[in-house]
Amino acid sequence: MTLKLYELVGAGDRRFSPYCWRARMALAHKQLAAEFSPCKFTDKELIAFSGQTKVPVLVDGDDVISDSWAIACHLEDKYRERPSLFGGGYGRPLTKFFNSWVDSEINAALIRMVARDIYDCVHPHDRDYFRSTREARFGCSLEQAQAERPVYMERLRQALAPVRTLLEGQPYLCGESPAYADYVLFGTFQWVRCASPLEVLEATDPLYSWRERLLNAFDAMARRHSRLTRAA
Amino acid sequence: MTLKLYELVGAGDRRFSPYCWRARMALAHKQLAAEFSPCKFTDKELIAFSGQTKVPVLVDGDDVISDSWAIACHLEDKYRERPSLFGGGYGRPLTKFFNSWVDSEINAALIRMVARDIYDCVHPHDRDYFRSTREARFGCSLEQAQAERPVYMERLRQALAPVRTLLEGQPYLCGESPAYADYVLFGTFQWVRCASPLEVLEATDPLYSWRERLLNAFDAMARRHSRLTRAA
Repeated sequence: MTLKLYELVGAGDRRFSPYCWRARMALAHKQLAAEFSPCKFTDKELIAFSGQTKVPVLVDGDDVISDSWAIACHLEDKYRERPSLFGGGYGRPLTKFFNSWVDSEINAALIRMVARDIYDCVHPHDRDYFRSTREARFGCSLEQAQAERPVYMERLRQALAPVRTLLEGQPYLCGESPAYADYVLFGTFQWVRCASPLEVLEATDPLYSWRERLLNAFDAMARRHSRLTRAA
Repeated sequence: MTLKLYELVGAGDRRFSPYCWRARMALAHKQLAAEFSPCKFTDKELIAFSGQTKVPVLVDGDDVISDSWAIACHLEDKYRERPSLFGGGYGRPLTKFFNSWVDSEINAALIRMVARDIYDCVHPHDRDYFRSTREARFGCSLEQAQAERPVYMERLRQALAPVRTLLEGQPYLCGESPAYADYVLFGTFQWVRCASPLEVLEATDPLYSWRERLLNAFDAMARRHSRLTRAA
């Protein structure tokens, strides 16, 4: 039985969605092969069967799951005998908190910093859609949002402080090996890496070497992918 | 063997330190009786034996532990057979993240909102110390910091969004019963409750009923305490 993941695709076959990267990394963690089905922002009809309009969407036999958090929970519950994403106990609710925190604090700051760069990366058919939806959300143009970079860069640096505290004592957020919490935040950095020339981490930041470790995970899946798409 | 917790005391025997409340709640969770030893901000000599200058300090037989996070880890490791604070697995590192997040995001916003009120609550001998150290940290007077309340109230409301997401589906942050993560954030609200007339939560907020549950926990320990100190 093949799993199929519908994921966002941009110009030159780039795969830059942070939420789709969460699902990609979770599948790899569970050692599950999947077919990746590219889907533009405006390809709403491709995933209409899921009853909603956003990727990622996972099809696993008769199960159709949308939303990256629901996909992680599905994989954890259905493939219990495989390496755990949440580590049992209070791991799941606390990872859910971490997931919501990355969405509301980290991604919300980053999107303004790279929105104009992402515009260049989305599929040409998606550009008007991307610009109009994001400008409505920001209340300003993509160019104006991106011009505020220094403000958001400082906010991002401060907001990441509790992650640095954790990484001072261990290579991954939950200990000696990566967990779903790592993939949640890694998805964010992979998004920036694939869609913008902006480097948001200094080489001396503990987050920088943590990101390197995750770029190397699963036979350097994320590193190879972003190289391929960057060369495209 | 009696455990002894050195905790902050203010005017009228008020106990309002958020970090000491974390330790109080953790002791109660572990069903451990303790003697509470009051200590003013400027009573540095009382806790000099701990090798540092801040409460809470826990003395547990030959063990002397300072810092609320280290105290929670000590209690979890030494009293393994008692109800768990972290829930095993990835619970500890993810609770550590939550702990750092509350310190850097939530408490940092709240202190500016209630600093002038706290000034009235600290022991008269501590007032000059409190004012000078906090004004140096804020870069403005306590009165000026507190005047920015509306800005920080809005920031707080937004920052708490991921906690609300969690409480939509369950009564406590980690599920059906309270865990150390709950006590971490509860300490913050108990601090405001004991030291300021400011109400930071609306009655319709899921956090409001969550706080009510924790005020009622352990025979309403926190509720009774704050009433006593408020009446003092």
